[in-house]
This record gives sequence, structure tokens and C-alpha cells, in this order.
Amino acid sequence: MFFHVQRLINEIVPGEPDPAAANALQEGLGGQFGEMRTMMQYLFQSMNFRGPSAKPYRDLIQGIGTEEISHVELIGTTISRLLDGSPEYSGKPTDPVDKPGAGGATPLNIALSESNIHHYLVGAQGALPVDAAGNPWNGSWVYNSGNLVLDLLYNLMLESTGRLQKCRIYEMTDNVTARSTVAYLIVRDQAHENAYAKALETLGVNWKTALPIPKTNAEKFPEVKKLLDLGLQSKQYTFDLTGQSEAGKIFQGLSPSNDGTELIANEQAPAGVPSTIAPERFEEFSPGLDTDLLALIQATAEMELADIEALFAPVPPTK
Amino acid sequence: MFFHVQRLINEIVPGEPDPAAANALQEGLGGQFGEMRTMMQYLFQSMNFRGPSAKPYRDLIQGIGTEEISHVELIGTTISRLLDGSPEYSGKPTDPVDKPGAGGATPLNIALSESNIHHYLVGAQGALPVDAAGNPWNGSWVYNSGNLVLDLLYNLMLESTGRLQKCRIYEMTDNVTARSTVAYLIVRDQAHENAYAKALETLGVNWKTALPIPKTNAEKFPEVKKLLDLGLQSKQYTFDLTGQSEAGKIFQGLSPSNDGTELIANEQAPAGVPSTIAPERFEEFSPGLDTDLLALIQATAEMELADIEALFAPVPPTK
Amino acid sequence: MFFHVQRLINEIVPGEPDPAAANALQEGLGGQFGEMRTMMQYLFQSMNFRGPSAKPYRDLIQGIGTEEISHVELIGTTISRLLDGSPEYSGKPTDPVDKPGAGGATPLNIALSESNIHHYLVGAQGALPVDAAGNPWNGSWVYNSGNLVLDLLYNLMLESTGRLQKCRIYEMTDNVTARSTVAYLIVRDQAHENAYAKALETLGVNWKTALPIPKTNAEKFPEVKKLLDLGLQSKQYTFDLTGQSEAGKIFQGLSPSNDGTELIANEQAPAGVPSTIAPERFEEFSPGLDTDLLALIQATAEMELADIEALFAPVPPTK
Amino acid sequence: MFFHVQRLINEIVPGEPDPAAANALQEGLGGQFGEMRTMMQYLFQSMNFRGPSAKPYRDLIQGIGTEEISHVELIGTTISRLLDGSPEYSGKPTDPVDKPGAGGATPLNIALSESNIHHYLVGAQGALPVDAAGNPWNGSWVYNSGNLVLDLLYNLMLESTGRLQKCRIYEMTDNVTARSTVAYLIVRDQAHENAYAKALETLGVNWKTALPIPKTNAEKFPEVKKLLDLGLQSKQYTFDLTGQSEAGKIFQGLSPSNDGTELIANEQAPAGVPSTIAPERFEEFSPGLDTDLLALIQATAEMELADIEALFAPVPPTK
Amino acid sequence: MFFHVQRLINEIVPGEPDPAAANALQEGLGGQFGEMRTMMQYLFQSMNFRGPSAKPYRDLIQGIGTEEISHVELIGTTISRLLDGSPEYSGKPTDPVDKPGAGGATPLNIALSESNIHHYLVGAQGALPVDAAGNPWNGSWVYNSGNLVLDLLYNLMLESTGRLQKCRIYEMTDNVTARSTVAYLIVRDQAHENAYAKALETLGVNWKTALPIPKTNAEKFPEVKKLLDLGLQSKQYTFDLTGQSEAGKIFQGLSPSNDGTELIANEQAPAGVPSTIAPERFEEFSPGLDTDLLALIQATAEMELADIEALFAPVPPTK
Amino acid sequence: MFFHVQRLINEIVPGEPDPAAANALQEGLGGQFGEMRTMMQYLFQSMNFRGPSAKPYRDLIQGIGTEEISHVELIGTTISRLLDGSPEYSGKPTDPVDKPGAGGATPLNIALSESNIHHYLVGAQGALPVDAAGNPWNGSWVYNSGNLVLDLLYNLMLESTGRLQKCRIYEMTDNVTARSTVAYLIVRDQAHENAYAKALETLGVNWKTALPIPKTNAEKFPEVKKLLDLGLQSKQYTFDLTGQSEAGKIFQGLSPSNDGTELIANEQAPAGVPSTIAPERFEEFSPGLDTDLLALIQATAEMELADIEALFAPVPPTK
Repeated sequence: MFFHVQRLINEIVPGEPDPAAANALQEGLGGQFGEMRTMMQYLFQSMNFRGPSAKPYRDLIQGIGTEEISHVELIGTTISRLLDGSPEYSGKPTDPVDKPGAGGATPLNIALSESNIHHYLVGAQGALPVDAAGNPWNGSWVYNSGNLVLDLLYNLMLESTGRLQKCRIYEMTDNVTARSTVAYLIVRDQAHENAYAKALETLGVNWKTALPIPKTNAEKFPEVKKLLDLGLQSKQYTFDLTGQSEAGKIFQGLSPSNDGTELIANEQAPAGVPSTIAPERFEEFSPGLDTDLLALIQATAEMELADIEALFAPVPPTK
Repeated sequence: MFFHVQRLINEIVPGEPDPAAANALQEGLGGQFGEMRTMMQYLFQSMNFRGPSAKPYRDLIQGIGTEEISHVELIGTTISRLLDGSPEYSGKPTDPVDKPGAGGATPLNIALSESNIHHYLVGAQGALPVDAAGNPWNGSWVYNSGNLVLDLLYNLMLESTGRLQKCRIYEMTDNVTARSTVAYLIVRDQAHENAYAKALETLGVNWKTALPIPKTNAEKFPEVKKLLDLGLQSKQYTFDLTGQSEAGKIFQGLSPSNDGTELIANEQAPAGVPSTIAPERFEEFSPGLDTDLLALIQATAEMELADIEALFAPVPPTK
Repeated sequence: MFFHVQRLINEIVPGEPDPAAANALQEGLGGQFGEMRTMMQYLFQSMNFRGPSAKPYRDLIQGIGTEEISHVELIGTTISRLLDGSPEYSGKPTDPVDKPGAGGATPLNIALSESNIHHYLVGAQGALPVDAAGNPWNGSWVYNSGNLVLDLLYNLMLESTGRLQKCRIYEMTDNVTARSTVAYLIVRDQAHENAYAKALETLGVNWKTALPIPKTNAEKFPEVKKLLDLGLQSKQYTFDLTGQSEAGKIFQGLSPSNDGTELIANEQAPAGVPSTIAPERFEEFSPGLDTDLLALIQATAEMELADIEALFAPVPPTK
Repeated sequence: MFFHVQRLINEIVPGEPDPAAANALQEGLGGQFGEMRTMMQYLFQSMNFRGPSAKPYRDLIQGIGTEEISHVELIGTTISRLLDGSPEYSGKPTDPVDKPGAGGATPLNIALSESNIHHYLVGAQGALPVDAAGNPWNGSWVYNSGNLVLDLLYNLMLESTGRLQKCRIYEMTDNVTARSTVAYLIVRDQAHENAYAKALETLGVNWKTALPIPKTNAEKFPEVKKLLDLGLQSKQYTFDLTGQSEAGKIFQGLSPSNDGTELIANEQAPAGVPSTIAPERFEEFSPGLDTDLLALIQATAEMELADIEALFAPVPPTK
Repeated sequence: MFFHVQRLINEIVPGEPDPAAANALQEGLGGQFGEMRTMMQYLFQSMNFRGPSAKPYRDLIQGIGTEEISHVELIGTTISRLLDGSPEYSGKPTDPVDKPGAGGATPLNIALSESNIHHYLVGAQGALPVDAAGNPWNGSWVYNSGNLVLDLLYNLMLESTGRLQKCRIYEMTDNVTARSTVAYLIVRDQAHENAYAKALETLGVNWKTALPIPKTNAEKFPEVKKLLDLGLQSKQYTFDLTGQSEAGKIFQGLSPSNDGTELIANEQAPAGVPSTIAPERFEEFSPGLDTDLLALIQATAEMELADIEALFAPVPPTK
Repeated sequence: MFFHVQRLINEIVPGEPDPAAANALQEGLGGQFGEMRTMMQYLFQSMNFRGPSAKPYRDLIQGIGTEEISHVELIGTTISRLLDGSPEYSGKPTDPVDKPGAGGATPLNIALSESNIHHYLVGAQGALPVDAAGNPWNGSWVYNSGNLVLDLLYNLMLESTGRLQKCRIYEMTDNVTARSTVAYLIVRDQAHENAYAKALETLGVNWKTALPIPKTNAEKFPEVKKLLDLGLQSKQYTFDLTGQSEAGKIFQGLSPSNDGTELIANEQAPAGVPSTIAPERFEEFSPGLDTDLLALIQATAEMELADIEALFAPVPPTK
């Protein structure tokens, strides 16, 4: 069973709208080696897991899988932020961007030349479940052979490929919003790479000097370096509310990445930051509530306030 | 950010293996109107949501979306249970089902005539991200127009179609394991139908006598009736750890299903039941650990026990 | 612009339900060489046609394309008839087939072992836009190079392949309902084969003895022979309401099929037969109107009768 | 059975070639919520319809479905017109655009930077059965549950989404050719929205102030306003040649769009305008007839003229 | 550049037709981890290879890739043999299996209940480029990141998964024809597993006891054991006509499979066996030549014999 | 069984990087009518071929199919060359293109605006198995009906369409590297067009003046003319190592292209040119070997040199 808090797992640094960067990030969300893929793959591997005596491996996969849902939320929201308001950044600033079609204006003209046209036409300047070339996510990508060594080997390759692709995305754009999320995911992918490599070590592989894959001095990426200095690549959370995870039996000892750090798995989750809701975009008819509908909402809210307060205990803001 | 507990949202009643029932359930997992779809659709609608003043609608969608992840876990595990050990039920009981290929035996012969051959060939008697006709899940199904009324209307139709299909699956099999999960999901789909119908009511629609869709006396389904008597179709959980959800502003008042119940949203989550790990299946080479690898695991576990106990506080079993 | 009459282009002979035959016919509806394909391909070739001086070729393609819509209607309705009521033919006759789920009955049990499970689970015993292996129809199949000779060559191959596949379907089942439609389409495919072959003759190809493709004595198929004796393979209708089609400039002279007949294009359309509406199927919740909804319909109908009669002139039944 | 006239359902206003606008329109043709989708969905819903007493609903769906074929023809031809001759508008006007490859010229250079390269490479400056992001049309999109209320609900959502997307396309371009067709379809989508909303009203839903969806003052779009002033959003044609349609029993009374108009269904079809054939494009080898082939056509035409005139009665041009 | 000899890389043992076994083998041909996949993946990795100093790795991949084309030929022909004539084995022996449709016979009736209906309807009892569940082969499966370590790691996982799936297929059927090919491919997959494992060893990984994957005593499979006794799992051919391959620099030393053998790469290719052409199948209209066409072929052959003999030197049968 | 030589079937003329031209060429590699398609289609037609007396037709198809593998290699390598180093040609020359990410540089910025972003993000500036619009290659495209006349007719259409598309690609770019390969393939497609047309002639078709398709004076394309002057369009190689091919019985006599040449089939294969390996690209982490890994390779190479030389006879460079 899963739970949610209204917080993002990592901060999204505010910056300029950038539809081209948003589109590159789609690979990390809906691509074959993106976060939707890892999330689904680990969810299936956990459900179908065989071998009660191998529980620590199940728990390791399950914990990473839970983290990946938060990664989907993080990168999806980042894409949404990068697209939000981008029509005003088209080089042809058009006045009535908030008055759809008024006087025959073309506030969405940018959609014809930038990014994926579906970002403006199918979605409302928001993330889509597709890759950077526009291909929809596909279930046939999920790998779950049921053979533990093979599943771990695939997972190691999957995380490494995700990290490789994100290093390439980093080199495509210097948008600060895009980079803040990409850098965070590069480091977390390495943490997961370490997790699966370590699991394979316990099953008889010695990685010696082969890791990390790709063999890159991530320190050359300034945003990445800051996170490496905090040791984020050697830490794994359980995301397990009742402390039953045995993933720590595997995720411990020297990092297979050969960076001299020790693997630590003694935290439940990072603190995260509060999530917010994006503004209205009239040119997309989103959310599309007219004055009457808004009045209805307002009326409903006021009427029910007392009742609601009786049901829900006042909640202190999360730290 | 998301969290997990090692509990299933509802009990899976033990019963006989049944690959044909397992395959029918795949529609509810990986089909166009199945749980992977609802989970992803509501996740995207939440990330891309516009309009801070409409937060209660976002929270309603987000809470249902979180529940759907647990539904994926529930129906996926149910399929896995229905497939587990099914080769022994082929009519041709073969001795060495646990000795892969020994003497040229064919312990997986059942795969040629039953269910989806991929359940035995690609997976190891486990759930797949495909529908009942074998088509992989596809991202183009996710609907998120950004227009709130349209998104709610689609969600209402989606839940109703899911419920319609599960009523049909119920009529295809009397396997108790399959039915326990199908009945539970029929009732929860109705709860979500109520949620989206109610949300549209607050925006100006009067459903009068049109609901529920399909217009079926679900009471004719005995397993469903038991849950209706508990009022499970009129209850919505928040799955929100810090109590910030405002979904209760919408999910309240008389049920639009015209069954005379009142909608209630004052619980965080159901209790659930502990989840377990499936047994090994040698004929599938799953998990495929030989004596040496098992010894390695055992040794690792013992060595690290002390360290681990220092990190994790002893956890009382969840009630 | 297109028009419709509530008549089928050919009679569907009544017979026994037969889900296996229905599924084989799906190839002729939603398969790569089925009627949806020909309909769409000719529609696109007509819209994108280049060369005003080549109008007779455009008109030939457009006329056949219009006929293909009626073929979609014919084969789709045939599949629907073959599926309709098939659960009662499962070998396990179940009483409450009209009382969905009552007492835990399994009136749709047949879906687990026969045909395509989607016929019962996604549709309500009706045709689907998929092929006989369950693959959905795909737009990438449509061929329209813009080069007239190539488009005609492809069309000739397309019709011949459709005819080949229907000859194979004929050999798979002796269900009279299935065969009545298959035989009709075998003969019409040959008429279209003749049309494209003749068009290529006017552009410089001499087919000599190579046609028809496949080289089969269709006379061995009794239902086909009856239609050949009527000369239906050498006749092309215009389906053009205002007589502007110039297709007859091409479709004339000796048949390239070497059967000694002459090609004739002087009729607008065949007479057809009245189409009917299928009965309700409660086990599918289709159409799913309960007593109240039916009463609403009845009331509406009576109230509006006078008004309607004022609007629509009484129409004599089509001959 | 279907018929055709060589007229377009609405005029296409002549204008400049515009491959970017053409590509945006592809969403309205081959997209998930485009005209190919509505056409196929209503065709399947009509063929598989259950419940003879609900005939007016079947006739409503069938009539709209027939109109959608003409919409496919209209938007497909519009795309073809927008692409036709566009290479000359690339900014790099090249002389030998009509002499393919002569002297190593690159008359199709525009294809590398504009629109969808397939418009020039796979098609010959013509429409394709794909969406604006290049994904081919897919049969899995067709929704036909067999449950009448659900099918109507889906259709309402489908038409509203189509209208939403076309409003967004309108805001992307001010090309007059593109806008003439987009504006017409925005208004007709609203007519269909009214039709399905009204049908649901007869089944017990009161839409009150929720419609139209999206809640947009379409009057802000000048080309749309002209058509609204003519009441085109409140009119439904039968497209039924023999007057058997009972759709008028449903499509009558006050418009659910709350614009004060009354729904009218007493016309068979609009007048339309004559359709024309596009010019040759040598750089695409389309139609690709050389002097010899053209001479063959000419000779054939002359030889057969007398024969043809004997077969076809001289037809006065349609008004 | 590639060359061909009219020999199969391994013998196909003659046996009974078996459409169910044929369909299981389709996974090994057109499945995500089948021979078409390995062939294409290694072909792309070879074409796009970077790093002249790493040529031995390129040559290793290229040599295995060339072998995979022969594997496609082997398993495709095996499937064709297993399907050939299978209609006569349907339990309902029908007389006129060689007289298509004569008297309304149904010689292809088996297609409705066995295997993939496309084997009889789309193909003519021959192999298809699809997997065992009927999904067509898809280019998105090809993995070629350009990072050598990752590509090798993927290839190791790919070969191991292919071997795992073939071990499962072996357990599904005891048809001797199917098993002769499956056993051969199990052993060759292990040879390729050894190749990629060894390549990773040279880059710093020590596999210790982790290989082979899956950890199975393939000796329990009698047909496999015979080939292991010949050492076929430790041998790699170059398939390189001019001896420029440097793959042997990698494929040497002790086998990483821990079976005590030494890897050998000093042969160009196995001897193979002559390939033959399948008989005609009239019920499929294949090849579909009537008496006239056959006479044409015969006449052509005789006329040209002298000319041909002048061009081609008489070739002694391959040893 | 297949063999390989480390030579390309035709020279790739060196030139400037050009990602837009590379992307256009993708249609010729992974498009529906590209080289992967022809290669696979002829491979399947050869494996499934029926009719021992029709062996010359099988051999003709098999020989062309073998050539197509070399065409895949040729066009794939050409795309790789056109992409290689293209980031330096972005208009924004960036210094640290070989120092990935150093100092936050964006050496891959070009990927956001040029070509297919996957060329830089998923691949490492190398060819992909997709078409020019980014759609992955699909197995459903392979046509193999088993009917010889139909298969030949399809093949003729396939080669002609391939040639048509390549003529269009020629008109899109004047990059010399792209044109050298495109021109070669235009001529070879015509040779294959001649082959299938001739095969149909032996079965009773007289093409008279209809060929070649498209009817284009390819002589207007200078690079094409040079090859036509060498007669390359009228020559077919066997690619058969042991001289058993009987394709020459068909491929002889006057060319059906009406260019007055005679068809010749008396060579085994063209000479080809040596193939080379592309340089490293650090910004893609390809091949991604760091100093340590390179040292490992070097050490391995030196250690094994003596052993290798004992195994492989010194090979003179191919002429």
C-alpha cells in the first residue's frame, strides 16, 4: 500500500521557461530508460518476486521503486514548470496571451516551431507520458524475467543508461531549472547503480574498477558536484513507513563506485520541499472555469468549511 | 513524495491456480481502462494541475491516484497468485515440475494451450504490463487535457468503464481468488465514480437518476454485496500522510449513485493485510539461485545482522 | 460529401453464433489487408490526388473507396451477428445468461477459451477495429505515394491479397453466416482487382495470362460461384449521387481476369437489404438501460412524435 | 450503404501554402481526438448497436458518423492545399522546382526544416493518417463499450476535446486557409457536443450551466462568430437518403449550450461546394505520368467518349 | 559486405508438424530477446562503433552478429517445417486438403483453434516476424548506447535472457524438430554469453561464480548435453571471409562459465547442412502457380540452360 | 548461412557532418520502404519459400536479400558519418566538445534544434532503427503471402517506392556524403526493380512501356548518371559463395526498364571498399573507456599477440 505527502523529493530551482529543455527532459520521464520505466519495472519485480529467503533483494528493489514514483513526480513537475508560460518567450511577444483567440490573435504560435507541439495542443503546457522524440511510453519495455541475477543485471544496466542519458541532457542545456532536476537525478541514478552493483556483489561478482558506468568525472558538472560532496550517491532511503525493509542488509559497506565512500541506508526519506500548484493559462482553456464555475467553487468551499474542520484535525505544516 | 508499507490494500483470498482467470484480470491491470491507466492518468493530472483556487479538485484526483498504485499492487499480486504453480493443473500432472528439463520432461507444457504464453515464457508465472489480449500498456492512453471539466468527465467515464469491465470479468470466472479482488475493485471503482460525479455536481451538473454507470444491481454479485453493506462505495481515503488534502470539501453529501448513502472522507487509509513473498519455481529458474548463491546470501545476512539491528529500530508488526 | 441509407450492401444469411468464425473475419475488417485499410487508403488517395487530366483514375479510386465503407459496414455487422448470443453456445449452457451475475453465475465463461476475449470484455459481443490476432488497425499501413502508377500497382496487390486471405478464411469455416459475407467480398475484391489491372492496362501494362491473382478456380467455392454466374466480378458501381464520375472511361472492355466477361460500370449502386438492430444483451450491460431509462425514452418518443412527423415527410420503404 | 457526391461539405478559403499550419491540422485529421477517430468510433457504435427500442440514439450516432467522413475529406483536402507548392515558400526559392533533380538542384530542401518530413518524402505534399507529432492513427482508440450511457458520455467528451484542440490550433496560426476549416469544425464539434448532451438529457442528466465544454467565448474567434450567427452549432443534418433517421426525436428543444437557440434537425445535408483536383508536382514525381503515358490517357479518353456518353445521362452541375 | 551459402548452420531434425511448438519458437525468432533482435542489435553496434583502438570488441560483436543472421535463418526455417502440413494433423483429417475449397471443404479449419491464426491466414504455414504472443518485432528494442561497457553489459543480459527463454521453451514441448533447434541455440547463446562476459573481464569485471546465467544444469536436457560434450559452448566462429577479425584477442582463456573449458576462436564457420525448399501447399495458394505458369517456368528454364551453364562454372556440392 | 567481409559494398564519399541529411537518410534505413524492410522481407520470403521447381525465383529473392544486408550496413554507416562530429557545426562552436560537461559547457546543444534528438541522446551520433519521422521499424511491414506472383508484385512495388523516396531525398540535400550513398541505392533499387519485373515477365506479364517506376530521367541526377553509364542498374550479383544460385535463369535478356541494356548476372559480388572505425566522442561518453580501461585493453592486446598470431594466418589486405 502506498501513501503520499504534498512535498517534492527535491527542490526545483525557479528559472526561465524553456520548451526545448522541457522536451529533452521528456526522455527522462517517458523514455525507454526514464523514470516511468524504472518505477514500473521495480513495481512489477516486487509484486512477482520469488523466494522468501531472498527478501532483502525484494526490499531493495521495492524501496528504489517507491523512490522512482517520487522521481516521476519531480521530473514531471519540472517539465511542467519549463513549459509554463513559454508562449510569452517566443520572440514574438503577443499581447492577448490571456485572452484566447481574441481578435484573431495567435498566442500559441510558438507551438509550431518549438519543442513537441503536443505540449501545447494535447496537453496544456504540461508534461506528457512520451519520450523526447514523441513516442508514447510502452509496457513492453518492462523487464522482469523472474531470474534474480538477470533482473539485477538489467536494473544495473538500466540505471547506468538513465545516468548516461541524463549526463547528455545536461550537456544540451544550461537552463537552471532543467539542470537542478537533472543533476539531482544523475546522483540518485548513481546511488541506484551502487545498489544493484552491491546486490550482484553479494551474489558473486567483483566489479573491481569497472564502475561507475559511464566512467565520467561527474565532478565536472558543477550542480552534480555539490550533491556528491553531500554523499547523496551513497545513501539509500527505505521509503518504508513501518520499518520492515531489509534492504540495508545489502546496501552497506564500501561503494562499488570506487569513490571511497561507504553506503548508508539508515534514513526513511529525505525532507523534500512543499509542492505548489501552477497558475491558470487562459490561452489553453486550463483549468477552464468561467466566473460562474468559480463562484460555485467558492460557495461550496465556504459552506463546507465548518464540516470539514470537524473531520480533519488541523495539521501543522510539514517541516 | 510517496511512501510504502509492506501491506496489501485488501486481502487476496487463497484458492486454486487458474491461468485463464489470471489472463482475464490482466485487462484490469494493463488494459486501456485498467489500474495502471488510472494510476498514471491521475498522477499526470496532479502534476500538471492548474489553478491554485481549485486545490480541492487536485487533492481529490491525487488521493485517488495514490490509491490506484495500491490497486496495481493488489491486482498484480492477485494475477501472480493465480498463475503460481498452475503447471501442475494442466490435466497432465508431470512429476519433475521442480526439476527443470530433467530427463527431457515438459513441466511447462500448459503454456502452449492456456492463457497468455508470455506468462510462462517471458515472466515466471507472474503478472505482465499487458491487457487480456496481450497488448502492452501504452502511454498514449493517458488523458490530461488540462481543462478541469473535461478531465473530470473523462475520469468519470474511465472509472465507469473499468467497473463495467470488471463486472464482465466477474461473469467469466468463479475462481474465489480472482473474485475476491474483482469484487473489491468493482466497489472501489464505484467510489471513484461517485467522487468524479460529485466533483462535476459542484461544477453545475445534476446527475439525477443517470448514475451509477453501468446501471447494474451489483447486489446480485454476492462478494460485491458484502462490501456494499459495509458502505465501501461511499468512502474515500486521503492516503495523505500530513493531512493537507482538501478532497473532503468535494467528497461529501449524498451519494450521486442514488443509493441513499452519504459520502465520507475522514479516514487516511484502510488497514490492509500483510503481503507475502511467493515461493521459488525451479521450472522457471526463478529466482534461480543455486546452492552456492544461497550460501552467499545466508553468510551475508548473518554477518550484517548486528550492524543492521543497530541501524533499524525493532519494529512491531503492523496490526 | 458522403450520404447513407439504412440498408446493407449485401444480405447477411442468418445462422448459428460462431465466435471463432467471427474472429477469423476480423482480419477482413481490421487487418492489414482488410476493408478498413482499403477504405482509408482510397479515401486518402482521392483527397491527395494530383493531375486534373487524370480525373477518371481519381474517380475510379473514389468510387471503390466509397464502396469499401459499405464493406466495413457489412463485415462489421456480420461479425456482430456471429458473436451475438454466442455465450449460450459454450457447451456449458448457463441459465441466467440474461441476469448478469445473479447468484454468482458465469454467463460469459466462454470468453476465457474462445475467440478474442476482448469481444466480450471490451466490446459487447460486437466487432472491433483489430485483426484476427488482436492487433489494432494502424494508420502506417495506408499507402499513398502520390505516384499514380505505384498507387495503382499497390491497390492491385492490396485487393489481390485481400481476396487471397478471404479464400483462406472460407476454408477455415463452413458457418453459413460467415460464408455469405466472405463469398460476396471475394467476388467484389476480384471486381476491384479488375479495376486496378484495367487502369494499369491503360498505362501500358499487358497482364496477358497473369490474372486473376491468386490463380484460383473460385468456382470450387459454391457460394462464390453463384455470384460469379451473376457477373458480379465484372461490374463496378459509381456510388456517385450526381453522375460526375468518369470511372467508366477506364472500367470497360474485356476483363483482365481472362474469364471472357466484359466490364460494366453503368449502375449507381446495388439495391441492398434493410439493416436491423441487434437485441439487448443483459450479461454485457448493453445497452444498459434500466426500467426508468426506458420509460424516459418512451415518454420522449411519444411527446415528440407529432413534431417529428411535421419535419420528416413520410418515406416509402426503399425498394 | 454509403454514397458520395463530388462536393466538399464546406468551402476551403484559398491562401498561401503553409506546411507548419498543415502539420497542426494533422491532429484534427489523424490525432486521437481527430475526425478519423470520430468517424470510426461512430461507425463501430452504429454497427454494434443493441436495443431496437433505442433506434433514435443509433440514428443520431450514425448521422453524425456519416458527417465525420465528410469532415475527414474536408480537413484532409485542407492539409493537402496547405502543403501544395510549399517548397517554393521556403525562403530559398529554387528555380527548377518543376525539374526534379535537374543539375543537382534541391527543390525539396524545405522538407528538412519544416513540418513533418513525411509530407514530402512519403506523401507527395498531401495529408497523412498521422497526428501532429507524427504518430500513426491507431484502432485501439475507438471506444465502443456497448453500454449506451457510457458510449454517449465518451462521445460528449470526445467532441469537446476535439473542439478544445481546434480552439488551440486556431491560436497557433492565422493562415486563412487553415482557419476557414478549423473555424467550421469548431462550430460543428459544438453541434455534436449538443447532440450527445441532449441525448444524455433524455436519459436523466441535467447539464444546467456546465456546457459548453470548453467554456469559451468562441465569439472572440471572428471566423467562428460568423458561423455561430448562422446558427450552425444548433443544426444537425441526417445525411440519410431515404428519410428513415429518427435522430430528430432527440436533437430538438433548447440547446444545452445555454446560448438560447433551439436545436433543429430538419435538413438532409448542407449544399457544399464543388471539389477540385490538385495540380501536378513534378518534384514529387506525382502523378508521375510521362508524355507517353499522358498520350495513352488522352487516346483512351477520346476513344471511349461515345460509349461513355451512352451509359451516363448528361448530368447538370450540382447547384 | 555479406555473403550467403545455401546451407543451414545446423541440422533441423525431421519430425511431426506441430503448430503449438512452432508458435512457442516464434519468441526465439521475433520476440524481444529473439534472434532478429540480437542480429539487428549487433549489426547496429558494429556500424556505429567508436574507438579504432577497441577494434577487437567491434570484431567480436560483428562476428556474433553475422552468426545471428544464420540463427534467424535456422529458427525461421524450423518454424516453417513445424507448420508445414499441420492442417492434416487437426484431428479432423479432411480429404481435399490439396483442393482448396472444393465442395465447400474446410482444409484450414485447424487455424481457428491452434497456434497463431496468422500462420495460416497471413502467411502460408510459414514463420512470421512476430513473438509468441503475436506482437510484431519492434525497432525500439535495439540497444546501442555507444558506451562500450554498457553495450557489452546489455549484450550479456540479452544472451542470458534468450538462453533462459529457450530453456523454458524446451520444457514446453518434446517435439524433436523443435528441440533440435532449441537445444542448439541454448548452447550457442551460452557461447555468446561467454564472449560478452569475457569482454567485460578484459575491462575489469571478475564474474567469479556468478555465471552462467541462468544457473542451470543444462546437462539435464539430453539434446543440450550432446552439444556441450562437443564443447560448442566454448567455441566462437569469425564468419569473416578475409581473416581480419581480431575477436580472438578477447575470446580466449578459461571460460567464465566455470565449466573448466577453454575458449577457442580458430574456426571460420561450422560446416552446416544443405538447405531444402518446402513443398507446395495448394490450400494456401502457395506458390499459386497454375499449369500455364508452371509451363512458362519450365520453358524458360530449358531455353536458358545453355546460357546459364556458360556463365556459372559447374559447382561441386558443398561438403 | 551467412558470411561477412570487413568491406563496404560501396564507397562513402567524405564530406561535412550534416544531421538534417542524416535524418532524411533514416527513411532509407529504418523506414517502411527502407533497407531493413527489404532485407527482412526477402529473408522471410526465402525461408518460407514453397515449390522446389521454382528454385530460380527463390534464389533471385535470396540473392537480393543478401545484398540488402550490405545496404543496411552502407546506409547505416553513412548516417553515422553524417552525424559524427556534427555538434561542432551548430553555429555555436563550443570549446570543450571533448570535455563532457566541463565547467557547465553544453557541447550537445545542437540536439535541441537539429534532426532527431535521439541521435545524440539515445545513440552516440550514430544510426538508429527508425524512420525519418522517428517511428521505430515494425515487423508488421514484412510482406510474405506465400503466393509467388503476389510476393513478386509486392517486391516490385517495394523497390520502386524505395527508389521514389530516395529520388526525393536526393532533392532535399546536396551534401556529398549523403548523395554518394543515395545515388548508389537509387541505381541498385532499379536493378532490383528490373529483377522482379523480369520475374513477373516469365510468369506472363508484359510491362511494355510502363517501367521504370517512377518514370524519371534519373540522368538528371549527376551522381546517378555516372553509375548508369557503368550499367549498374542492369547487373545482379549472386552473393552466393558456392555458386548454387539459379537466379541467372531469370535475370537475363533485355531490361524491362526499356533503356536498351541487357541484364547480366555473372558476378558474385562487387569489390567494395575497406570499412573503417569511427573516432571516439567524449561528449557522448563513447566508447567511454577511461585511462585505466584503455591500459587494460593495451595490456591484453600485447599479452595475447603471440597466441593470436599462431591461430590466425597473416591475411593480405583485400584488394
